Amino acid sequence: MPQGQTPSTPDDGLTTRQRRNRPLVVVHHGAGKGKSTAAFGLALRAWNQGWSIGVFQFVKSAKWRIGEQAALEALGEVHTSTGQGGPVEWHKMGSGWSWSRRAGSEEDHAADALEGWREIQRRLAAETHGFYVLDEFTYPIKWGWIDPHEVAETLSSRPGHQHVVITGRDPHPALIEVADLVTEMTKVKHPFDSGQKGQRGIEW
Amino acid sequence: MPQGQTPSTPDDGLTTRQRRNRPLVVVHHGAGKGKSTAAFGLALRAWNQGWSIGVFQFVKSAKWRIGEQAALEALGEVHTSTGQGGPVEWHKMGSGWSWSRRAGSEEDHAADALEGWREIQRRLAAETHGFYVLDEFTYPIKWGWIDPHEVAETLSSRPGHQHVVITGRDPHPALIEVADLVTEMTKVKHPFDSGQKGQRGIEW
Repeated sequence: MPQGQTPSTPDDGLTTRQRRNRPLVVVHHGAGKGKSTAAFGLALRAWNQGWSIGVFQFVKSAKWRIGEQAALEALGEVHTSTGQGGPVEWHKMGSGWSWSRRAGSEEDHAADALEGWREIQRRLAAETHGFYVLDEFTYPIKWGWIDPHEVAETLSSRPGHQHVVITGRDPHPALIEVADLVTEMTKVKHPFDSGQKGQRGIEW
Repeated sequence: MPQGQTPSTPDDGLTTRQRRNRPLVVVHHGAGKGKSTAAFGLALRAWNQGWSIGVFQFVKSAKWRIGEQAALEALGEVHTSTGQGGPVEWHKMGSGWSWSRRAGSEEDHAADALEGWREIQRRLAAETHGFYVLDEFTYPIKWGWIDPHEVAETLSSRPGHQHVVITGRDPHPALIEVADLVTEMTKVKHPFDSGQKGQRGIEW
């Protein structure tokens, strides 16, 4: 449990309160389920704090996140109409980022991914959101489309109080290095192995 | 990805469609973060399907789930007012289950836990919910308060289309045996290790 004494007290010049409230870079990786769903579960906590939520999907087709997107956007509407929680923005690659004019140019995934990252850099510099989900962001890095060291530098020097959660398999070591919290989701048992395919409400 | 050919096609007399839509028992365990947050992330998908969501918290104090609870209950209110998504019920042990008259009897945790499980059995028999989260349910089983074999029998014989997600460390082998999908969350790196305590919006 995160209460009580920590194993060590770092000599970083911060008070316990300052250290406690330091914003985090979180990585969810591994071959198991739950990397993205745990990120969206964290987004519920962030929403309840009234923070602005920004979700950036780097790989999956619209189908695979439709449940989370619909639910989180509904929470964004709750914020708009009642003031409860925080605002929610959801952006995805593939059908064109919503801030981009390049919609339809699905051919050039590498350029799309880099364009998404450039926008995230601008938002981090402007402190646009309190909580970012960079969903499946490990893949465009793995495929050489985005420079992992530039990502690490941007994250470690970001201003203000901005949490960033990155999901996906095979994170580059530079991401692990810059992360404060890393969890590996390991597959122990999966219905696919016994002949069951994905289903609505569970996989999307 | 859960599309395409599965490694084996079981000789269970089911069509692919029947097998695909078979309801799941899911277990999230391990020492890492994300067991409960991934369960609540799945609840977003279930909500979007219009399923009734039932959350049953077996251990943690109200503080630790306040973000998820507020967000999921807000989604339940969206359902009530607009018809989008499904209804949400949230019940917790400790301050008394909401269906129970024993509120205030916080001394007898074992009896409280068993009472919660009995209610879940009644709901499973009545097909009350489409999606259940039994949060931290592994612990009352581990502590001998609830019989794991009875749990396994109840889960494996439950009627209709009811998904059940169980979270917590050290699940009894009978739970793993009855589960369709098991993920272990492994701690790779945690800010607590470098002297950072839990913070709002991340831990609760």
